[in-house]
Amino acid sequence: MSRVLIIGAGGVASVTVKKCARLPQHFDEIYLASRTVSKCEALQQEVGADRVKGVFAVDADNAKEVEALINEVKPDLVINLALPYQDLPIMDACLATNTDYLDTANYEPKDEAKFEYSWQWAYQDKFKDAGIMALLGSGFDPGVTNVYTAYAAKHYFDEIHYLDIVDCNGGDHGQAFATNFNPEINIREITQRGRYWENGEWKETDPLSVREDLDYQNIGVRASYLMFHEELESIVKHFPTLKRARFWMTFGDAYLNHLRVLEGIGMTSIEPVEFQGQKIVPLEFLKAVLPNPGSLAEGYSGMTCIGTYITGIKDGKEKTIFIYNNCDHAKCNEEVGAQAVSYTTGVPAMIGAALMLNGTWKEAGVWNMEQFDPDPFMEMLNEHGLPWHVLECESSPFTK
Amino acid sequence: MSRVLIIGAGGVASVTVKKCARLPQHFDEIYLASRTVSKCEALQQEVGADRVKGVFAVDADNAKEVEALINEVKPDLVINLALPYQDLPIMDACLATNTDYLDTANYEPKDEAKFEYSWQWAYQDKFKDAGIMALLGSGFDPGVTNVYTAYAAKHYFDEIHYLDIVDCNGGDHGQAFATNFNPEINIREITQRGRYWENGEWKETDPLSVREDLDYQNIGVRASYLMFHEELESIVKHFPTLKRARFWMTFGDAYLNHLRVLEGIGMTSIEPVEFQGQKIVPLEFLKAVLPNPGSLAEGYSGMTCIGTYITGIKDGKEKTIFIYNNCDHAKCNEEVGAQAVSYTTGVPAMIGAALMLNGTWKEAGVWNMEQFDPDPFMEMLNEHGLPWHVLECESSPFTK
Repeated sequence: MSRVLIIGAGGVASVTVKKCARLPQHFDEIYLASRTVSKCEALQQEVGADRVKGVFAVDADNAKEVEALINEVKPDLVINLALPYQDLPIMDACLATNTDYLDTANYEPKDEAKFEYSWQWAYQDKFKDAGIMALLGSGFDPGVTNVYTAYAAKHYFDEIHYLDIVDCNGGDHGQAFATNFNPEINIREITQRGRYWENGEWKETDPLSVREDLDYQNIGVRASYLMFHEELESIVKHFPTLKRARFWMTFGDAYLNHLRVLEGIGMTSIEPVEFQGQKIVPLEFLKAVLPNPGSLAEGYSGMTCIGTYITGIKDGKEKTIFIYNNCDHAKCNEEVGAQAVSYTTGVPAMIGAALMLNGTWKEAGVWNMEQFDPDPFMEMLNEHGLPWHVLECESSPFTK
Repeated sequence: MSRVLIIGAGGVASVTVKKCARLPQHFDEIYLASRTVSKCEALQQEVGADRVKGVFAVDADNAKEVEALINEVKPDLVINLALPYQDLPIMDACLATNTDYLDTANYEPKDEAKFEYSWQWAYQDKFKDAGIMALLGSGFDPGVTNVYTAYAAKHYFDEIHYLDIVDCNGGDHGQAFATNFNPEINIREITQRGRYWENGEWKETDPLSVREDLDYQNIGVRASYLMFHEELESIVKHFPTLKRARFWMTFGDAYLNHLRVLEGIGMTSIEPVEFQGQKIVPLEFLKAVLPNPGSLAEGYSGMTCIGTYITGIKDGKEKTIFIYNNCDHAKCNEEVGAQAVSYTTGVPAMIGAALMLNGTWKEAGVWNMEQFDPDPFMEMLNEHGLPWHVLECESSPFTK
């Protein structure tokens, strides 16, 4: 008998909850908590009280409050789908209650746009000593992209040398400007300086200054921009043969124009400004005027294509493969009332949780996705809505 | 002996105060009031306590508070350089205390972007009965452009038929995006639908949808967009021979791009949005992140060119003239520490006030600028930093 506590009730959480609800063999009892309990209640009503057994209000910034909640629910696993700022208080609460932990994005301090695993990796000994497990970054990217890398290294190469993760949203939501997940988190991430791994060190680029025009399966050619993404940090650590590791994301001209205007006038800043006697963070206010990403699903057409190009050596010869998934916005909406960006994050969270609960991926300590056997995860991706394909490429598509 | 009370302490007020301070023959005693008294104190310190005799904090939204202030200062004239929202409370306070009134922009209700004189014209009988005078719109546009029209009608034509007011800021302040006066007021104005007078009725256009490329003296060709501007309303009323009256303002592509992005995502809206449990008007928050227009003066280069094209009949023949002023941002900064947009509004406010105080323009009631003899005003423009020129044109430069 297994019991999960899911913290968070946004677009991603809604997908994870609905997917877990359909799999009683993995998830006997589901409990939901979020700052706004009405969002949990709405989800419970949609999914059914036989599957979502209870809902709670919780301030996930407050470790003591989360600890009390865990003591009340007594889950086998906490699935953290709240904000990245809240990873550490939730990990603290798991430690205090000897409870396993899973998240989909690494911790960020709220007052600094800094993306690295140092804070969470620092929990390694504590989790090990307590005999509990934390699985970090079980979304799509990070998450599935890490598993793709492990899968390629296991089945296709003797040694991997070059890694390029590509993330293309070829969808159209019909809005002037909207982010596909929490605008605050999204804009913090893409306005930072670019960073990639080469020959044993990190190299920096100006934000979105390096571009490749790449051809995406079932979408076409899209301008793709080099940026830092958190899985690079763990992947280069766990695959030390990599000579270079980069991450690319597609952005349309209209999106970039909006971003540059908003950044140029200071609306994406996380430095508070004086407003009518109070201090307000411009990026937080911007979030309030932009569409809620959860609201984009209706009428969203087109597909995402996210995957990993890997070049390496097999039997003495160099070769390149591309492992990828296409995810259709409209089909996701039909299945679970969500757009593909929520879906591609929410499903892997469910899969990671299922593998932890059934003991397939189970070891005390703090782990990244590529550290476990990729095969059972890859199998579940095919079964639960995120089928993948492997292309053998004639050559790498990158000109730089 | 004359005494003025100036309400407001922004960029325009700073120009008016400094100009008045240099003319003791017109302004014996100057008093300043604003919501933020520290701004008045700073101006007093700059100009000298011998000229600015006293400073006060006042909430100009509150007619009773303004009335008490007027009773304390006992000015001969109140110069209102506060926000357009505050015209009516200040007029009420003038009525209650039998004090003359001058402003530079017509009343706007705060919750509606509506630009018309109806509210202020409704005070006509009350001001007449009280034997006091209100001079409306004594800035550049409205203000000088109205006087240009009256001057042309008096000296150059038997009958005027076509009027086109053009407002070009050919300056460069080096900022990604900034408005040259209060961003809230500026953006409310330029995002509204276009409107012009033709054959006895108002015609509407989509916002900034009608464009002419016009050649501005000492600046060059600039894209100019048809928009409504408040002086059109009073000018077509007082010059009923006009067959058409339009207003054009220049905007650069980068400015329009910023405006469209901000409007598209709702940042220019005056409808409050929910933010952390309170209601905040996006346009007011935008104002807080944009540069203070007063801060643009330093390093602002280039000129403005604002003027009036008039086509009409003289001695049976059709002809067109252009009356205009060029104003240099850097020279304004050198003279009074302000940019040209503040300067071109602040100087005419001083001139209107001087003409009222010395009895040249003096009649009980509520008046627009074009209703008085333009000659003394035109003369003072030449003397006080805003010299004008009359060009006889071979033909109208407008293609539409």
